[in-house]
Amino acid sequence: MDKLAMTETIMAAKADKGWSWEEIAAQVGLNPVFVTSACLGQSSMPREYGEKLTAALGLSGEVVEALAVCPMKGTEQAVPTDPLVYRFYEIMQVYGTSVKEIIHEKFGDGIMSAIDFTLDVDRQEDPKGDRVVVTMNGKFLPYKIW
Amino acid sequence: MDKLAMTETIMAAKADKGWSWEEIAAQVGLNPVFVTSACLGQSSMPREYGEKLTAALGLSGEVVEALAVCPMKGTEQAVPTDPLVYRFYEIMQVYGTSVKEIIHEKFGDGIMSAIDFTLDVDRQEDPKGDRVVVTMNGKFLPYKIW
Amino acid sequence: MDKLAMTETIMAAKADKGWSWEEIAAQVGLNPVFVTSACLGQSSMPREYGEKLTAALGLSGEVVEALAVCPMKGTEQAVPTDPLVYRFYEIMQVYGTSVKEIIHEKFGDGIMSAIDFTLDVDRQEDPKGDRVVVTMNGKFLPYKIW
Amino acid sequence: MDKLAMTETIMAAKADKGWSWEEIAAQVGLNPVFVTSACLGQSSMPREYGEKLTAALGLSGEVVEALAVCPMKGTEQAVPTDPLVYRFYEIMQVYGTSVKEIIHEKFGDGIMSAIDFTLDVDRQEDPKGDRVVVTMNGKFLPYKIW
Amino acid sequence: MDKLAMTETIMAAKADKGWSWEEIAAQVGLNPVFVTSACLGQSSMPREYGEKLTAALGLSGEVVEALAVCPMKGTEQAVPTDPLVYRFYEIMQVYGTSVKEIIHEKFGDGIMSAIDFTLDVDRQEDPKGDRVVVTMNGKFLPYKIW
Amino acid sequence: MDKLAMTETIMAAKADKGWSWEEIAAQVGLNPVFVTSACLGQSSMPREYGEKLTAALGLSGEVVEALAVCPMKGTEQAVPTDPLVYRFYEIMQVYGTSVKEIIHEKFGDGIMSAIDFTLDVDRQEDPKGDRVVVTMNGKFLPYKIW
Amino acid sequence: MDKLAMTETIMAAKADKGWSWEEIAAQVGLNPVFVTSACLGQSSMPREYGEKLTAALGLSGEVVEALAVCPMKGTEQAVPTDPLVYRFYEIMQVYGTSVKEIIHEKFGDGIMSAIDFTLDVDRQEDPKGDRVVVTMNGKFLPYKIW
Amino acid sequence: MDKLAMTETIMAAKADKGWSWEEIAAQVGLNPVFVTSACLGQSSMPREYGEKLTAALGLSGEVVEALAVCPMKGTEQAVPTDPLVYRFYEIMQVYGTSVKEIIHEKFGDGIMSAIDFTLDVDRQEDPKGDRVVVTMNGKFLPYKIW
Amino acid sequence: MDKLAMTETIMAAKADKGWSWEEIAAQVGLNPVFVTSACLGQSSMPREYGEKLTAALGLSGEVVEALAVCPMKGTEQAVPTDPLVYRFYEIMQVYGTSVKEIIHEKFGDGIMSAIDFTLDVDRQEDPKGDRVVVTMNGKFLPYKIW
Amino acid sequence: MDKLAMTETIMAAKADKGWSWEEIAAQVGLNPVFVTSACLGQSSMPREYGEKLTAALGLSGEVVEALAVCPMKGTEQAVPTDPLVYRFYEIMQVYGTSVKEIIHEKFGDGIMSAIDFTLDVDRQEDPKGDRVVVTMNGKFLPYKIW
Repeated sequence: MDKLAMTETIMAAKADKGWSWEEIAAQVGLNPVFVTSACLGQSSMPREYGEKLTAALGLSGEVVEALAVCPMKGTEQAVPTDPLVYRFYEIMQVYGTSVKEIIHEKFGDGIMSAIDFTLDVDRQEDPKGDRVVVTMNGKFLPYKIW
Repeated sequence: MDKLAMTETIMAAKADKGWSWEEIAAQVGLNPVFVTSACLGQSSMPREYGEKLTAALGLSGEVVEALAVCPMKGTEQAVPTDPLVYRFYEIMQVYGTSVKEIIHEKFGDGIMSAIDFTLDVDRQEDPKGDRVVVTMNGKFLPYKIW
Repeated sequence: MDKLAMTETIMAAKADKGWSWEEIAAQVGLNPVFVTSACLGQSSMPREYGEKLTAALGLSGEVVEALAVCPMKGTEQAVPTDPLVYRFYEIMQVYGTSVKEIIHEKFGDGIMSAIDFTLDVDRQEDPKGDRVVVTMNGKFLPYKIW
Repeated sequence: MDKLAMTETIMAAKADKGWSWEEIAAQVGLNPVFVTSACLGQSSMPREYGEKLTAALGLSGEVVEALAVCPMKGTEQAVPTDPLVYRFYEIMQVYGTSVKEIIHEKFGDGIMSAIDFTLDVDRQEDPKGDRVVVTMNGKFLPYKIW
Repeated sequence: MDKLAMTETIMAAKADKGWSWEEIAAQVGLNPVFVTSACLGQSSMPREYGEKLTAALGLSGEVVEALAVCPMKGTEQAVPTDPLVYRFYEIMQVYGTSVKEIIHEKFGDGIMSAIDFTLDVDRQEDPKGDRVVVTMNGKFLPYKIW
Repeated sequence: MDKLAMTETIMAAKADKGWSWEEIAAQVGLNPVFVTSACLGQSSMPREYGEKLTAALGLSGEVVEALAVCPMKGTEQAVPTDPLVYRFYEIMQVYGTSVKEIIHEKFGDGIMSAIDFTLDVDRQEDPKGDRVVVTMNGKFLPYKIW
Repeated sequence: MDKLAMTETIMAAKADKGWSWEEIAAQVGLNPVFVTSACLGQSSMPREYGEKLTAALGLSGEVVEALAVCPMKGTEQAVPTDPLVYRFYEIMQVYGTSVKEIIHEKFGDGIMSAIDFTLDVDRQEDPKGDRVVVTMNGKFLPYKIW
Repeated sequence: MDKLAMTETIMAAKADKGWSWEEIAAQVGLNPVFVTSACLGQSSMPREYGEKLTAALGLSGEVVEALAVCPMKGTEQAVPTDPLVYRFYEIMQVYGTSVKEIIHEKFGDGIMSAIDFTLDVDRQEDPKGDRVVVTMNGKFLPYKIW
Repeated sequence: MDKLAMTETIMAAKADKGWSWEEIAAQVGLNPVFVTSACLGQSSMPREYGEKLTAALGLSGEVVEALAVCPMKGTEQAVPTDPLVYRFYEIMQVYGTSVKEIIHEKFGDGIMSAIDFTLDVDRQEDPKGDRVVVTMNGKFLPYKIW
Repeated sequence: MDKLAMTETIMAAKADKGWSWEEIAAQVGLNPVFVTSACLGQSSMPREYGEKLTAALGLSGEVVEALAVCPMKGTEQAVPTDPLVYRFYEIMQVYGTSVKEIIHEKFGDGIMSAIDFTLDVDRQEDPKGDRVVVTMNGKFLPYKIW
């Protein structure tokens, strides 16, 4: 079972159950963004969690194996066209160099890891219209001097 | 005075003072990321703040005007090559579709605004290595049904 | 049923009925451009409207569900080659910076929303040759100062 | 005097006068979008109008000549990165095929001209936030059968 | 029947008859380039001509309908690799700006229409090697001053 | 004197004289498209013609030498954005495969030369709007069988 | 039978016979590079040779017809990634302008034809390691002065 | 002295002397293609040859040093637009896979070196039109099995 | 059996056996990176090794033949999006010119062969976190002076 | 002093001294690849080392400051054209997926860091031709499960 078939299988079971990603994630005991990315084939999920997920959704051990495979990550579009995804590309285009300045001032030369990294998406109530809060949390990695 | 000359002028004054973006931002009364993006020519700064900034750095009114101009935003590179900036591109490539799924579940069809939007960069102390925390906060904009 | 199958099903039913998009839209109670974009898989249609559309065209509830899904939007071609679609790309290339100047003068720094947005296509009779009138109406979104 | 020098000259005079594009356009007797596009070097302005414009701004006859030259149109970026300009690209990506369907149904095979074409930008007051209204008006050109 | 299946059906019938595009076009009463482009799915052919074409080739009414559909035009390759097609790209690269200069001098600012447009391909006998003569004939469209 | 300086020199002299490309070409004894392409640096002009051109325009022998140099041809934009030049790109996109079919039927496998090639631009009067007639005439080159 | 199926059929028969391209070419009476390019669908092979080829390999007349069709030439990759093919791209990148200089000096303005053209690949024995000798032979085509 | 200034210096001296690349190469004792590529900044020329070249052309030792520097090779255009250079790109597009097949049959898996490599350009007299003969000679490099 | 089917067959057998690439490579008697690249269709494996591999995995002679075919190498993505593969692209972007400087100083003008080349991946234990050690070993190839 | 001026200053001093990168690096007490990348503007060099470098080369404190700035890294070319640098791109294209497989098997899901990373270039003597040995050593970073 490849990642594509895995995603379709999980999506169908999720639709049957009528569960949200948050509800599935709660049963697996992990963050909803991580669980979603594993189910969409962009992260590998350790077997112990894959077993909880498939138990909850009533899926076979093949899905556990497929979830555990290290995937080829990323997409085919260099510049995304979907408006929601594009906004993150735009933020990088507009604020990328500013964030670079600030991180270098606060930490020195290095980067924010995108591997030792977590991502949260939250809803913030606001009378003028609710807000999406995306929190990225990555280890600072200083460049090695050698 | 165009944006390029404006940035060079501000950078030189900043180096002379030996101030960080945080210190400058505190004197202007705005967020450091916003102040940096205005100084790098990616945001327009209202004159009332521009005057505080130039007063602090000892710069002319021309800089106030240049800061107030609405800039052509974004950069020339479709895919960034700087490792720090690239990591944000990578996050969009790897987690973009997951974030899309979660936002649609929590809010319905629409996007997180990149305009009615704020961005913070913080340092989180951690014994295993300090962490960079980037918080994006944008108004949810539902697609209009017409 | 994915968006592709949904579009094919609707197109076949539309051809059988011999209805135009305008006639279908009138029965749904929405604008023809919006209805077309939902049927082509570029917008999500709320179930209450999807039910009217499928009732009119004699289609199943699966189509209602498929119409309600939030789609991956946009197309694969960065620069369109179809001459009709290309003209809109050309307008952006030739007049984009002018429109930017005018909007900034009239509204300040910000953008016209493409989300809180409607689009109309009308026919204007003209003895020298009828004219296409495309009206875009989007909320102005000022950049947040933070 | 090439187009680049012409734009800089006009921009400086405009800033000195403190006039908006609307005010300049009123003195020239043409639409503000057209006048802006001519001043930015994307349209050619007939000499009779160029003379009014330079008279108002106190500029030389060289500017009249430069405005009359047929320019190389368009910009270097295939996909714009400025958020305001990008929204028009996004509209073409998301609604382009829908507009194509509607125009073909209303007019048959052909296109909306981007040459025999006018473009207006208006402000529509709205208690929930003012709106930008962009109206494109182009002659329908049917494909010749030969 | 989509355009792809339509093209295959026509090509098979054409091969069976052993007719050239010129012979088919003569029976339809249209220019061979136009007939070919309609059969390859790049133009829409009005039903009255589609009926003559299908009558001659012994094809069904489905083909008439498929020929009448307004197609998505153009190809996937931004720069063609086929040597014959590439030469037209090369001509535009090498002589495009010269043709622009000449048309502007002869007609003023505007373009040659590619819609109200005909294209002929002829063979010119020449003792030093026969020549291909391609004649493009498009209405001049002056830019509207508004 | 490089090609860029050569073009500027010729353009200035041409503007001073107030001559069209047709008038210059008549004095040189060559086709206006060819003369224009040589002056824009896209063709090399033999010295005997370069001398006539510089004599007419009152230019130095350096210009004769610069005109005679074999240039690097073509432009930097893979897809042109100028609307007039783009229409030729669009014609290749839409009709390229049809022209290929017709040429192969009339001549066999091979191409129309873009080197042993002439190009004419003419104005055809028409009560419904004058027309641009572009005639390309290239030697047919059959593929060698070896 | 399209070109793809044709190539597969020929490759299978070639593998069954255990023949090299050189051995097949010898039976057809043409150059191995030409025969290979025709079998890979990049050249059209006249029927008289196609019949010899199919007779030798025991293939049907359909293959003869498929070989005779004028193909869409070239590949999808603008920059090849296969190391062997890339080296020819690299040679053009590194030595292309030098070859241009030399050809212009020896022949004047014009090009080496890639149509009236032959290509040979030979093995040259060498004690320090055998060498590949690729010989390109194309008619010089002078630019027409018109 | 960088490579750009070096090329300009050599070109000016070459023009003054009125020598061809062949004549210069004869005095240096190397192949004209190699000498041209060194002078255009695409190859490094050992000092012993650089001294002969500068002695012949009457140039300074700075030129010898500049010629000896290992250059950044290749050009900025991924797909060349100059017709002469493009033909080599086209040959790779059309015949690249055939050459790959033949080399693999004659030599096994590996490539023709573009480093241990020579390139010659010759003129072959031919009553039907002289021909350009380009000979590439590169060491075969077998892939290492490890 | 093409390379794609070959890879799938080997991957399935490898999963059944539960062997790592290292264990398979040990049985074949070659380096794990080489064996993996051959199994993924990026290298050709001589039949003597292919037979050992298929014997160990219990696969047919067809797999031996498929492994021996010289493949079209490389992938479709010009810039990789998978984070692990991207890091090697980043290293080339950031350190490519430095490595070029060092190699030229140590060896003169030339390159490191990617053909007469081996690649090793090792695990280095480290109390601060184990390290990946990638060793590339390629023959230096000096540019030929001719 | 920006990075460009800094590189030129260092290169001139290095040429004057006649030192290799290895000799400079020995005086600074760091690896030659790192020192070269800092001098080429691709790494930031801590002031304590920058002072040793400038003391050795006889350069001013401005160079120390310029070396310490965190640079925008990477180059403008997505695919390098210089043959030496391209070979590293080719290695990533051909062996990238194999290295990914091996690292995942040896370490699990994660990447080799390009930040906590060192790079060495060595010369290995070999009677059949000396070899370049490039050793990359990066910390393994496991993906965080959250």
